[in-house]
Amino acid sequence: MELCDNKKAFDFIDILPRSEKPRRQGLVMMLDKGLGLHLAEDMAAAAQYIDSVKLGWATPRLFNEAFIQEKVRLYRDHGIMVGNGGTLLEIAFQQGKVEQFLAYCRKLGLELIEVSNGVVPINPGEKTGIIRKACSMGFSVISEIGKKEPAEDRRLSLPDRVTEAKRDLDAGAQYVIIEAREGGRNLGVYDESGGLKEDMARYLAEEIGIENIMFEAPAKSQQAELILLFGRDVNLGNIRPEDVTSLETLRRGIRGDTFGKIPHKDRPWPLP
Amino acid sequence: MELCDNKKAFDFIDILPRSEKPRRQGLVMMLDKGLGLHLAEDMAAAAQYIDSVKLGWATPRLFNEAFIQEKVRLYRDHGIMVGNGGTLLEIAFQQGKVEQFLAYCRKLGLELIEVSNGVVPINPGEKTGIIRKACSMGFSVISEIGKKEPAEDRRLSLPDRVTEAKRDLDAGAQYVIIEAREGGRNLGVYDESGGLKEDMARYLAEEIGIENIMFEAPAKSQQAELILLFGRDVNLGNIRPEDVTSLETLRRGIRGDTFGKIPHKDRPWPLP
Amino acid sequence: MELCDNKKAFDFIDILPRSEKPRRQGLVMMLDKGLGLHLAEDMAAAAQYIDSVKLGWATPRLFNEAFIQEKVRLYRDHGIMVGNGGTLLEIAFQQGKVEQFLAYCRKLGLELIEVSNGVVPINPGEKTGIIRKACSMGFSVISEIGKKEPAEDRRLSLPDRVTEAKRDLDAGAQYVIIEAREGGRNLGVYDESGGLKEDMARYLAEEIGIENIMFEAPAKSQQAELILLFGRDVNLGNIRPEDVTSLETLRRGIRGDTFGKIPHKDRPWPLP
Repeated sequence: MELCDNKKAFDFIDILPRSEKPRRQGLVMMLDKGLGLHLAEDMAAAAQYIDSVKLGWATPRLFNEAFIQEKVRLYRDHGIMVGNGGTLLEIAFQQGKVEQFLAYCRKLGLELIEVSNGVVPINPGEKTGIIRKACSMGFSVISEIGKKEPAEDRRLSLPDRVTEAKRDLDAGAQYVIIEAREGGRNLGVYDESGGLKEDMARYLAEEIGIENIMFEAPAKSQQAELILLFGRDVNLGNIRPEDVTSLETLRRGIRGDTFGKIPHKDRPWPLP
Repeated sequence: MELCDNKKAFDFIDILPRSEKPRRQGLVMMLDKGLGLHLAEDMAAAAQYIDSVKLGWATPRLFNEAFIQEKVRLYRDHGIMVGNGGTLLEIAFQQGKVEQFLAYCRKLGLELIEVSNGVVPINPGEKTGIIRKACSMGFSVISEIGKKEPAEDRRLSLPDRVTEAKRDLDAGAQYVIIEAREGGRNLGVYDESGGLKEDMARYLAEEIGIENIMFEAPAKSQQAELILLFGRDVNLGNIRPEDVTSLETLRRGIRGDTFGKIPHKDRPWPLP
Repeated sequence: MELCDNKKAFDFIDILPRSEKPRRQGLVMMLDKGLGLHLAEDMAAAAQYIDSVKLGWATPRLFNEAFIQEKVRLYRDHGIMVGNGGTLLEIAFQQGKVEQFLAYCRKLGLELIEVSNGVVPINPGEKTGIIRKACSMGFSVISEIGKKEPAEDRRLSLPDRVTEAKRDLDAGAQYVIIEAREGGRNLGVYDESGGLKEDMARYLAEEIGIENIMFEAPAKSQQAELILLFGRDVNLGNIRPEDVTSLETLRRGIRGDTFGKIPHKDRPWPLP
């Protein structure tokens, strides 16, 4: 079925507006951890609510090249940018193959490069070097801040995070991702049960600039809390394919959790 | 593949029987929170275990009309009734567009209308007014009892719930849904960890009549507990697409949780 | 799209090797609890990481024979063996229909027979009798150890489990499965929150032989813990379709949880 018709169902019901793609704020990054083609095709109907897809961690390494190419083409045909998982680039770095990695990503049709240091030690100069290199090749670059091991992640102080974020932004990163993994617990701005550490989230937003941050937010409660705290144009990542539509209803104020509660765009932010 | 053949696999193994669709008891309402067409098509193989599909909360508002029409047609072709999520009708009410909403549902091919007051304040007279209106237009109507906000939901007393249910049934609702949302925690008959409040469930069943109730029961443990308590013909809703088959095995007594434990139909109910 | 090309994406990045199918160790058994055909087809891209599929508990009994046959054919076309859920065979035993069951499985194209006694009491002699019968018909046979009811499962002592496992292996079972169900909590080697009881897992591995065991491990944390404890060639079952790729990244050491931590094959095992 061609979904060329843009008329929405129930379009006589007023809902909060949203910017169109390509947008700079209110970004949604969906996590693809090895979706098959039928499921990837199914995302077409919600494509306008997906700005980018991350091929999670090192999963594409396990698939046939032809399959990954086909999937990247499919996403791009629907106006969705595709990027690597940071872990795969970290492994490439460890093996001294960053240039080969970036060239290959271009060949595959990836437009987004995520640069992280979550499992492999990559020092600040090395990280910004990779960011600069990817920018120079024409990629959109995003940087991830945080460690995949909770104990290690907790050793990252707040000022450390801010310093790293600013350095990466200066090097050319479009925004920084606050690590939460697929699970969303005990990492970055989330506590052991996945609850939002509001003070930490506010601090990072104030210091780094909310427009420069994407929070990984795999759980619905996290998505709702961040939208209520920062407004509907907060950038959110690691969204599960089956939750893309739900997230958009939260942003538009048409799900119970956010209905009638979305902060106005012009409200002073962050709250005192 | 045409699945026209009705011969079941392993049909020499005896299992508990079930009524055929259209059935009045033992109903299954599946929650569609934005399924793509491949996934919706995949439900065809289990279509005889799905009485209705709810297009969850306000999700259809975000999709192209052509897409929703195609999906509704697909479900109907498999003998599955399609209904709205209550939230969308509540928003239409708030915007003074109930008539337009109902007319549009008819145009889309919906046969089921859910009337709720979970997020928008709708007083008893207004709610029964909507129920009567939808009935008069030929829809099957179901009413939902409960609030989406746990704190607000707890303020609804048991007698209040019974009064509202009886009023809605008198107005023409086929049955009432006990709200539990997609999560099934801390609402209606479920405690904070999703466990069944058995006393509350029994009370509602006694006062309202178990045949007039559908319990939202997203978790497997909730489905099993309700089947063990009320028998395999209890009406259950908010079933995830991937759990439709599992639920039917629970009803038929061919999953460990209910094997050999299903109350007989003629057993006095509710238990003293 | 034909995925005939075997060249992997990012194949210049070195990762830990793995044996090819058909393999004897490092087996992956995926749980199919009623997948539709589009979803089953989607597994093709990851087929080399799936050794077998279990048609969970008694779910196939609810589907049309033509549908099950089509799905079995689809899996087999991708080199994946298909087996029954133990519960269905237990019910057949209770109804005195084991021979008919096995003959029918052959007709459907199943190659794997799981023999369990998780819900129906089947004594040792009867269980080994079924194993021998299935072996004599040319099936690969696996035996499951454990009860589906946690309280009942806890009454199975460790020596009891070892005795049953050895008896079943002697009767011809290729390996034994340690029961954990779909949920992975409060059964077998897992505690109430799904954590691994490491001492119990080690004891079973020492007494039965790790090469003769498949652990059901539905949660990612369980998969990672078992791989870190026993190495990447531990046999794991009840893997969700959407987690097949993730599991393979854990085995290959290209996900944060196991990156740089996988025990070497030649490391003395189990650890002192």
